[in-house]
Amino acid sequence: MSVTAAKGFTAAGITAGIKQNGNPDLALVVNTGPRRAAAGVFTSNRVKAAPVLWSEQVLKGGEVTAVVLNSGGANACTGPKGFQDTHATAEKVAESLNAAGHGGTGGHAPGQVAVCSTGLIGILLPMDKLLPGVDKAVAGLSEHGGEKAAIAIKTTDTVHKTSVATRDDWTVGGMAKGAGMLAPGLATMLVVLTTDADVDAPTLDRALRDATRVTFDRVDSDGCMSTNDTVLLLASGASGVTPEYAAFAEAVRAVCDDLGQQLIRDAEGASKDIRIEVVNAATEEDAVQVGRTIARNNLLKCAVHGEDPNWGRVLSAIGTTSAAFEPDRLGVAINGVWVCKNGGVGEDRDLVDMRYREVHIVADLAAGDAAATIWTNDLTAEYVHENSAYSS
Amino acid sequence: MSVTAAKGFTAAGITAGIKQNGNPDLALVVNTGPRRAAAGVFTSNRVKAAPVLWSEQVLKGGEVTAVVLNSGGANACTGPKGFQDTHATAEKVAESLNAAGHGGTGGHAPGQVAVCSTGLIGILLPMDKLLPGVDKAVAGLSEHGGEKAAIAIKTTDTVHKTSVATRDDWTVGGMAKGAGMLAPGLATMLVVLTTDADVDAPTLDRALRDATRVTFDRVDSDGCMSTNDTVLLLASGASGVTPEYAAFAEAVRAVCDDLGQQLIRDAEGASKDIRIEVVNAATEEDAVQVGRTIARNNLLKCAVHGEDPNWGRVLSAIGTTSAAFEPDRLGVAINGVWVCKNGGVGEDRDLVDMRYREVHIVADLAAGDAAATIWTNDLTAEYVHENSAYSS
Repeated sequence: MSVTAAKGFTAAGITAGIKQNGNPDLALVVNTGPRRAAAGVFTSNRVKAAPVLWSEQVLKGGEVTAVVLNSGGANACTGPKGFQDTHATAEKVAESLNAAGHGGTGGHAPGQVAVCSTGLIGILLPMDKLLPGVDKAVAGLSEHGGEKAAIAIKTTDTVHKTSVATRDDWTVGGMAKGAGMLAPGLATMLVVLTTDADVDAPTLDRALRDATRVTFDRVDSDGCMSTNDTVLLLASGASGVTPEYAAFAEAVRAVCDDLGQQLIRDAEGASKDIRIEVVNAATEEDAVQVGRTIARNNLLKCAVHGEDPNWGRVLSAIGTTSAAFEPDRLGVAINGVWVCKNGGVGEDRDLVDMRYREVHIVADLAAGDAAATIWTNDLTAEYVHENSAYSS
Repeated sequence: MSVTAAKGFTAAGITAGIKQNGNPDLALVVNTGPRRAAAGVFTSNRVKAAPVLWSEQVLKGGEVTAVVLNSGGANACTGPKGFQDTHATAEKVAESLNAAGHGGTGGHAPGQVAVCSTGLIGILLPMDKLLPGVDKAVAGLSEHGGEKAAIAIKTTDTVHKTSVATRDDWTVGGMAKGAGMLAPGLATMLVVLTTDADVDAPTLDRALRDATRVTFDRVDSDGCMSTNDTVLLLASGASGVTPEYAAFAEAVRAVCDDLGQQLIRDAEGASKDIRIEVVNAATEEDAVQVGRTIARNNLLKCAVHGEDPNWGRVLSAIGTTSAAFEPDRLGVAINGVWVCKNGGVGEDRDLVDMRYREVHIVADLAAGDAAATIWTNDLTAEYVHENSAYSS
């Protein structure tokens, strides 16, 4: 279903030959209208890939008619040539869509085509393969193309990720790619969300930011922030329905939440999914800071891998933050057992059962009533292998 | 040589039975005077172990007559009982030294005995073994005991670490333990430095802070900061020589630098030692921030393990900092090859030879003339194994 679950969208996923292994590597999502409203959020990394610089400009207009996404190369740190390549890709998409009669209301202009790329940094894209691939993708566009598009954006992902929230008479759907380099200021990933709700660009922007702040922004697989993170939300208006803001925002958040969980579950080499819930913090910012710091502690991530309820590593991590707390009031529960109470030894650690993939850590700061949850995973030899055996 | 290279010190290292594996686990360093000046720096972790809280108080007096160090347990997050145990240990050391006639000028008082502990967090020390061990250590004190003391403070260290700087007629010596949890605000470790120079406590404090700021504070093995970090510098004055400040500070820095390098070379599971040199930064703070951020990037650390000159991961890391730079002016050299120039592809990455243990990364921010160097190591499956296979 993916991005074509909502009415008013077509999509395609094809093999352009960008990836050397012959897997699908080019996806196209087209908004057939009548509305072409869009919003986007991008990596907060100051080293931004060419497609991010391009798409940020496109989104300023509040209209996107098509999104082209390639795997097999990030087009990051590629200088002026990299940016020219992104521009040329957008031009080719508009031209090819118009030539094939997919123009819809008003046709396609390059300045309304968002571009996303993912893969190795510092390599120019093989434009001799990518541009002909655009024609092939346009030829393959379909109202049922969502799955193929989701498959074509995979890199080290073991599965493709899609989600759909269907409400009474409108829908939000989406696809995501991401497996490594998942970190705040957006988990490293590409995400395209679509809806047939009749919603204008400012409302899309608000709903998208409200959703990403508590979903993708709180996924932190390995503390590494990408140069290419992009999340786009496109509205076709094809349902003719304009939902209440709260209902619309909830549906967007539900899809973002589901896709974010799928990202963590597919994190490179992971054997455990860790939910870190920080409670009784003085502020939500404190809770997020503490959650992130715990999520990035390699020693704790190793301990979880070894099914060792090593709460000392949680306290060590909390101690490096600037959050409000008193060391002798801290509490830590692992899988429901309060192994640390009042900053010291609590319930018997042998009571903790860590055999299952899901691990739940609660850090109680005893400093207020704010809370936040961060999702991460364990650190494994397989992660090291995946990220050392070849360039990625 | 170690802490007994300087005149006016005796030391011992014995097996008290704290460690279950029967390895040496208790060290004692005694300043026999005539001076008993001392300075110390401690972890900046807000969750501090009982011995850190105790020793911080001791050092406020500017005099330390003895340091007792145990491995086999960190005595961190152990509540009031843990603090009482530290206090009892200091009392036992003073009592035992006085009883054995090791009092020297003025004898020993508990309030001048520093205590250091290292090992697992959240476990009370076996005082029934530790206290008799103090008597045994006192009985073993010797002017040649430095090596044994250095051996007794090892945890996951594969080698014991000592260093000596001998000047015309005075000496600075030291020992260190540390292998994992090495991070800023002091690398995780215990260090005792001794000198027979006749130097007062304020001068010791200045020299120690000047030295640790550019040595131990810039060692970052795994981004994890300990609850027990302690670096002590004790002066006996036994040489009768008061060196110029610059000469003394240089010798202290030389010993700290050497011990810091030994810590990195023994980092858990590491196969590569990585020197990250940040140049042309706007400020030294910027350079340190960028160096640390690169040092903590798991993806880069994996790439170095795989001998892959993946400069894109260096740029991704730099992009997450608040340092002054323009993305299109950044440069990165790996082992002398400028693989990234002006934020894009530079010299041929195939020219980079990464077969050797030492890896040198230069990040050029092109934003000023400040610089800093951070030392770290790669991320390996062995690190994961060492930190997941058992509690540590």
